[in-house]
Amino acid sequence: MTENHNSLTLMPAQIDTFRQPVVFMREDCHVCQSEGFGTHARIEIEVADKKIIATLNVVTGGEWLPPETAALSDAAWEALAVKTGDVGRVSHPEPPASTSAIRTKVYGGRLDEAACRTIISDTIQRRLSDLDLAAFVTSCAGDRMDEAETIALTLAMRDAGAQIDWGKGPVLDKHCVGGLPGNRTTPIVVAIVAAAGHLIPKTSSRAITSPAGTADTMEVMAPVALDQTAMRRVVGAVGGCIVWGGGLDLSPADDMLIRIERPLDFDSEGQMVASILSKKAAAGSSHVLIDMPIGPTAKVRTEAAAKALVDRLQAVAAALGQTLSIHRSDGSSPVGRGIGPALEALDVLAVLRRSPEAPVDLRERALDVAGALLDLVEPNGRKRAWELLDGGRAEAKFMAICAAQGGFTEPGEAPKVQPVNADRAGRITAIDNRRIAKIAKLAGAPGRKTSGVLLHARLGDTVDIGQPLFEVHAETRGELDWALDYAASGESAFRVEDAP
Amino acid sequence: MTENHNSLTLMPAQIDTFRQPVVFMREDCHVCQSEGFGTHARIEIEVADKKIIATLNVVTGGEWLPPETAALSDAAWEALAVKTGDVGRVSHPEPPASTSAIRTKVYGGRLDEAACRTIISDTIQRRLSDLDLAAFVTSCAGDRMDEAETIALTLAMRDAGAQIDWGKGPVLDKHCVGGLPGNRTTPIVVAIVAAAGHLIPKTSSRAITSPAGTADTMEVMAPVALDQTAMRRVVGAVGGCIVWGGGLDLSPADDMLIRIERPLDFDSEGQMVASILSKKAAAGSSHVLIDMPIGPTAKVRTEAAAKALVDRLQAVAAALGQTLSIHRSDGSSPVGRGIGPALEALDVLAVLRRSPEAPVDLRERALDVAGALLDLVEPNGRKRAWELLDGGRAEAKFMAICAAQGGFTEPGEAPKVQPVNADRAGRITAIDNRRIAKIAKLAGAPGRKTSGVLLHARLGDTVDIGQPLFEVHAETRGELDWALDYAASGESAFRVEDAP
Repeated sequence: MTENHNSLTLMPAQIDTFRQPVVFMREDCHVCQSEGFGTHARIEIEVADKKIIATLNVVTGGEWLPPETAALSDAAWEALAVKTGDVGRVSHPEPPASTSAIRTKVYGGRLDEAACRTIISDTIQRRLSDLDLAAFVTSCAGDRMDEAETIALTLAMRDAGAQIDWGKGPVLDKHCVGGLPGNRTTPIVVAIVAAAGHLIPKTSSRAITSPAGTADTMEVMAPVALDQTAMRRVVGAVGGCIVWGGGLDLSPADDMLIRIERPLDFDSEGQMVASILSKKAAAGSSHVLIDMPIGPTAKVRTEAAAKALVDRLQAVAAALGQTLSIHRSDGSSPVGRGIGPALEALDVLAVLRRSPEAPVDLRERALDVAGALLDLVEPNGRKRAWELLDGGRAEAKFMAICAAQGGFTEPGEAPKVQPVNADRAGRITAIDNRRIAKIAKLAGAPGRKTSGVLLHARLGDTVDIGQPLFEVHAETRGELDWALDYAASGESAFRVEDAP
Repeated sequence: MTENHNSLTLMPAQIDTFRQPVVFMREDCHVCQSEGFGTHARIEIEVADKKIIATLNVVTGGEWLPPETAALSDAAWEALAVKTGDVGRVSHPEPPASTSAIRTKVYGGRLDEAACRTIISDTIQRRLSDLDLAAFVTSCAGDRMDEAETIALTLAMRDAGAQIDWGKGPVLDKHCVGGLPGNRTTPIVVAIVAAAGHLIPKTSSRAITSPAGTADTMEVMAPVALDQTAMRRVVGAVGGCIVWGGGLDLSPADDMLIRIERPLDFDSEGQMVASILSKKAAAGSSHVLIDMPIGPTAKVRTEAAAKALVDRLQAVAAALGQTLSIHRSDGSSPVGRGIGPALEALDVLAVLRRSPEAPVDLRERALDVAGALLDLVEPNGRKRAWELLDGGRAEAKFMAICAAQGGFTEPGEAPKVQPVNADRAGRITAIDNRRIAKIAKLAGAPGRKTSGVLLHARLGDTVDIGQPLFEVHAETRGELDWALDYAASGESAFRVEDAP
């Protein structure tokens, strides 16, 4: 068949299909008709030396897509690196090799090293459809991956992206399994550990569904979008950093699997361990502290679940040559006072600056985690952490890190602030973390840096009628009203009951 | 929160997302920003008394989607039954109840009757995402559903749509597991069985990926898009029908699951049995004959696989109160001469009319299946089938069925016909069914009714150089060239080797 039978002019659809490459083609286009492409077909698109597989959506009307033209979703457009008017050849792709590896696992077989490598390779090349990835995630759900499979998957994920080698010396890292709102210990822990003279090149993520991720909070105080060269320079100069991991290509398959795992919301011990440790291994970490809050609404809900997860983490870390320790903590209520990038940054700075208003729970948690992490490489970690924080050396180190990352900025304050008061007296017997998070997001977090919620009362506090429970901080009047409207509707975020 | 915070004007996107409801929203729209909706979020859209859940695709640029407007995919637009300019309220939906039933199965638990009913109900209400459905399909793959689960799923699927009650008397039906190209026995079998005086209200499907489905072939000779009232009238008058099942709402969940099962291509004994028998049960069939071709490229590849499937089919049929029998047949090569709607219809008519050119294999297969089906309700079925066909009563009954369905039409012939000849002498040792099917589709089948491929030589035949192997039939010059170009490229569809 001559080539132009399968050729279409390309244009960007300007539609974000959540990283899945999608191609939009008219139902009357000659390629659709002749190839018998139906909607949801997988289609290979080739331009010069680049080739991708995309899912077809058929355009059944309207004027936006010209005849004999294919429009590509943002992910497909970027992957092909084309420009409007380029011509692409479209064809039926061969099923990717990894589909048979996935099939084996689905039917109860095991994943060996080769299977993991082909699945991860096809994942990052976007050759697997979202349905294929959902099948893979499902086949590994619960405890369906054994230790050897978890190790094979972790290694495949580590090796599929960039890897950083820091040379000699222990490289420390921390990770929190299942974040609590406001549990922003990372900047404090990094400052303490770096002040102790250890390497701690920390990468963090931005918020996906929460009002702030560590990278969002850090970004209020210093630039975080550093490339590997800049990150190396910072760590070389001051021993630590807190940068956004998204631009470093560390275990890139992880983000692609999380994209599928998050909406399905299946716990998979094996995939969770591979996700955490492949990123740590790619980042070059040798000593890793896992902060594991345990509680009814935390990610890890029971001691039994914690035990199984800890065993698996230890086994895989050993296979990777990492030293790993677990810090169990209470996961029953939010931490600190602020929720939203700048408000959380203010809590972090208050702790580092030993301010009298610094939230005690955040300070204690940060000291616990930093102490446990230091314990991996020196004696009396908790005491050392306390000395470094209270002596001001952690604060100085944090400022040096911010300076090295591009310069410290004091967090701003929102122009609109309004308290929400108790409508009765009594004791606070519950705080609905999901409602609090939604109020913060309606107020503009994390997009608007100074927006969010500042808690004035805590679980167990006794309040009078009219006493402020929390404040809403917003950058615009509309967003403030919006958040307040929502806060006033339905159930209150704070349950106040008669004190016993 | 006041309502207009969550309101957007609706318009049709005119994009076919393969039945998954999708909503396109601008990234700068106030609802996206305030609700924190990210791409791939599930969004509830409510208009008057109708409510759907759709997957969000974020529009990142371009002019086609006006500000504060949401565009809906074809499936979402139809489900809400709105008109352009209507205002919809969008919100975060609660996760559908069935996700916890799916989760239980994924983690190794069992599906009880209530679980199956909630999964099927949420499936047909489109409350489950494609990822959820992929997880469900995966969790049932292979032999992961036991007999009780298969029965529960079949009953849930049957009960979730329309059901036809034919009153007294056996109601006969047939189904072919994994079609062979050209294996168009259904119209002949229905004609024979109805001529024998039995009720056989047959529903068939259109092609999805093949050059013709039974409904496409039948439509060349008579209307097939009948509603249930018209179907009842036809069956009441002449005892049988061959209609398109797509408009009758019989086991509607089946099509939605097939949409996911087909690209994943996992065999699931339980889901296959539920798929087949829920449709038959909803159609009111009491006696069902399953035609099961077994062969290396057929759906059922080995005797062992056939045995397990047969046992499961029998057990579920018994639970449904159906009498079921299996007819095993050879699944190693195509059947008949024509491939494409009209060309297959000509084969069917040649058999019914006892024409000397009638393909013997199609005739014999139809007699086998009709005989086995008659055996369920009377003695000596094969002999009776033969008498009814050869005596012309099957032909007369077929014409009566066509007349009752709206009138018989003689299949047309394509204006462009060109043979493809052997380029060497020898014996035909292989025919590539996939290439033959693709040539037929490039020639225009099934959209163009008279297009397709007419086979002139069969497996094992000896041919001379220049002797025609097959003809390409097309309605336009362009499509003819296209199909011939493809036929001349790469491997030939016929392998001709030196005769031994």
